[in-house]
Amino acid sequence: MEFFQCVPLSEARDTIIDYLKNSIIHSETVHLSDALGRIAAEDIVAKDDVPAFSRSTVDGFAVQSADTFGASESASSLFSIIGEVAMGEEALMEIFSGDAVSIPTGGMLPLGADGVVMLEHTEQPDSNHLLVLKMVAPGENVVAKGEDIQGGTTIIEKGQRIAPQHIGVLAACGCATIPVCKKVEVAIISTGDELVDIEESLTFGQVRDVNSYALGALLLEMGCAVKHMGIVKDSYQKFFDVLSKAITNCQLVIISGGSSVGARDYTVKAIDALGSPGVLIHGVSIKPGKPTIFGMIDAVPVFGLPGHPAAALTVCKQLVKVAVRQLMGQEQPIEPIGIPASLIRNVASAPGRDDFINVRLSKQDGKYIVSPILGKSGLIRIMAQADGIVHIPSDKSGLYNGEIIEVLLNKSKE
Amino acid sequence: MEFFQCVPLSEARDTIIDYLKNSIIHSETVHLSDALGRIAAEDIVAKDDVPAFSRSTVDGFAVQSADTFGASESASSLFSIIGEVAMGEEALMEIFSGDAVSIPTGGMLPLGADGVVMLEHTEQPDSNHLLVLKMVAPGENVVAKGEDIQGGTTIIEKGQRIAPQHIGVLAACGCATIPVCKKVEVAIISTGDELVDIEESLTFGQVRDVNSYALGALLLEMGCAVKHMGIVKDSYQKFFDVLSKAITNCQLVIISGGSSVGARDYTVKAIDALGSPGVLIHGVSIKPGKPTIFGMIDAVPVFGLPGHPAAALTVCKQLVKVAVRQLMGQEQPIEPIGIPASLIRNVASAPGRDDFINVRLSKQDGKYIVSPILGKSGLIRIMAQADGIVHIPSDKSGLYNGEIIEVLLNKSKE
Repeated sequence: MEFFQCVPLSEARDTIIDYLKNSIIHSETVHLSDALGRIAAEDIVAKDDVPAFSRSTVDGFAVQSADTFGASESASSLFSIIGEVAMGEEALMEIFSGDAVSIPTGGMLPLGADGVVMLEHTEQPDSNHLLVLKMVAPGENVVAKGEDIQGGTTIIEKGQRIAPQHIGVLAACGCATIPVCKKVEVAIISTGDELVDIEESLTFGQVRDVNSYALGALLLEMGCAVKHMGIVKDSYQKFFDVLSKAITNCQLVIISGGSSVGARDYTVKAIDALGSPGVLIHGVSIKPGKPTIFGMIDAVPVFGLPGHPAAALTVCKQLVKVAVRQLMGQEQPIEPIGIPASLIRNVASAPGRDDFINVRLSKQDGKYIVSPILGKSGLIRIMAQADGIVHIPSDKSGLYNGEIIEVLLNKSKE
Repeated sequence: MEFFQCVPLSEARDTIIDYLKNSIIHSETVHLSDALGRIAAEDIVAKDDVPAFSRSTVDGFAVQSADTFGASESASSLFSIIGEVAMGEEALMEIFSGDAVSIPTGGMLPLGADGVVMLEHTEQPDSNHLLVLKMVAPGENVVAKGEDIQGGTTIIEKGQRIAPQHIGVLAACGCATIPVCKKVEVAIISTGDELVDIEESLTFGQVRDVNSYALGALLLEMGCAVKHMGIVKDSYQKFFDVLSKAITNCQLVIISGGSSVGARDYTVKAIDALGSPGVLIHGVSIKPGKPTIFGMIDAVPVFGLPGHPAAALTVCKQLVKVAVRQLMGQEQPIEPIGIPASLIRNVASAPGRDDFINVRLSKQDGKYIVSPILGKSGLIRIMAQADGIVHIPSDKSGLYNGEIIEVLLNKSKE
């Protein structure tokens, strides 16, 4: 009863990467205020040094550090106060041996100075004189010109997702606009004679179109723009027309329910008819998600995903994400970062298949504990209750009670 | 030289929670397509059972399971095929002992049936008869009405941040619109005579306003709406006017640079003048971020954050976030989830102070390794290079080489 030949998950990933490795990355320029979560389209290089001038990191007095040599509470060094650096203004004076200049935190170091004595290590016998009670080393309490970021340094690498700390670096370098990848436009086509939109009421036999919304949200989270093409029923011609429209308007197409029994012949036939090479994969050794379809309609990758929400989301995370990253010029992560945790029961798995199971994560006596969520696979509730997923690789025939395994956290438990 | 009395981080958190615990949560209704990342404003309860009827999980034949008792390859049971369930339609027939009805995956189980025999465990000697070659148990290959979600169950709890899997559950339950917390409007006021906006060019002595952008991005990530009030220089009256405007328009105010030497007197004076109880905290035992100010202008929480970007972001994550969560009706997490990793050098820390250090995380021989990023604290580059942060609690005087500590990941390394 198998209509398809399963390939291993790793082979499916390699096929996707291979067909998309030379994809054109479309970029656009956005203001820094709109850059959060976007993907850098090229390496971004600092034009100038940060800071652009040497700055004090404390409130105190700029001096030539050599003049403080030997200074202590019992043997203070005497300086002449020759001026004051104002915050935000250029320090126009130059200091020589024996001179001190009052300087605020962040103030510009005057020419000739190479260190700052903290206010609390000084005394002022009168307004023109300063006693220094502690030595400062050259460069002490100073951030030198370019010490934070040197002009010419790459501050953000191509493919980096822009987080708040990167926004900080870009602002520091005066990058008011930055080149980012255009959002990959993904068309979602739902197929299934039993489906109705969430806006409509159900009659017996019908179920709601969960995947358009759940996959849509997952793709938004990946940084895509989502185009909902609606629910297609019954007719090959209607399906062909919608798919044909999707590939002209979008850079990636997802057919939800397109790999289920009723729809897979349509799906395969239409993908093959609309362009070459057509269907490349029909079946992946993954649970849930086995009847997945992947093909290329000329330059547009198309996925046929199972109708079961749990399977559709798993395949979206494991395979569609690979395609999205390729289309945005991002490197594929070598290994995702998970929380090592101790498993509290045995979990069976068929060797030769990559399994993804929903789990709960908790902490007992400072140690992380992971427990699979019981219940029939494919239940939507289980997916929503999970703190994360655990991957059982294809070379394992299961996991054992007490084994330390890694949990990939869902972005939700905040 | 201390103008302020530091409180422990835990006390600062308690003070914030205490003053905001009875805050009014403003809610609004959004469509499910716009709900990703929003915070549920109330518990959301499933109105009906999911599925709304018992469904087959395989392609096969619906039967009374008792009729298959003893069936095997060598001793098949004979059934009469009395009809077919169409996908998406109500099963109108009723079956009795000896009857079988053809049913697709997801099809509605007819009245009288309590199990489904998989197609591959059957043979059809003619179009009206079926041989069953394997027993099915009651309920086998069926998801019963309400088995996934029972009507009346709470599917999303108040305060939950909506992730793709929650969108799936909400779609399954037909929740086309949901009540979410209005985005907390946060005003950011930048103070500092040395600051210029990133759009402008720098002269010596000036630096770019990093915090408006970096804090803005962090607050967006927390689910807030951000209002930039611009850079305020020099004058107490100007500052007073801007702060006064901010508290009327927003639910939370951040004064960036408001705790630095030049600005803190202004900040404290204006907060105290505009409402009561005024300034509640001036100084927190945290590194970076010690000179933090927290106060309440009547019902509006106000933070004065250090001007150093690294300190400002740390305090925003450790304290402003607590206030934001309270304003959105979210519980405070008991303990954040971090990656346990082995530290590769000693790190000194002062007891009585909570330290947050930027670190890199890597994997060697399957084990996570954490290394602090070296360089003067407060450098912007260090913050952008970090994979995450490590918290050294106030009761520790440092961390030791080889110690297993937890790394809180930055949301960036994707």
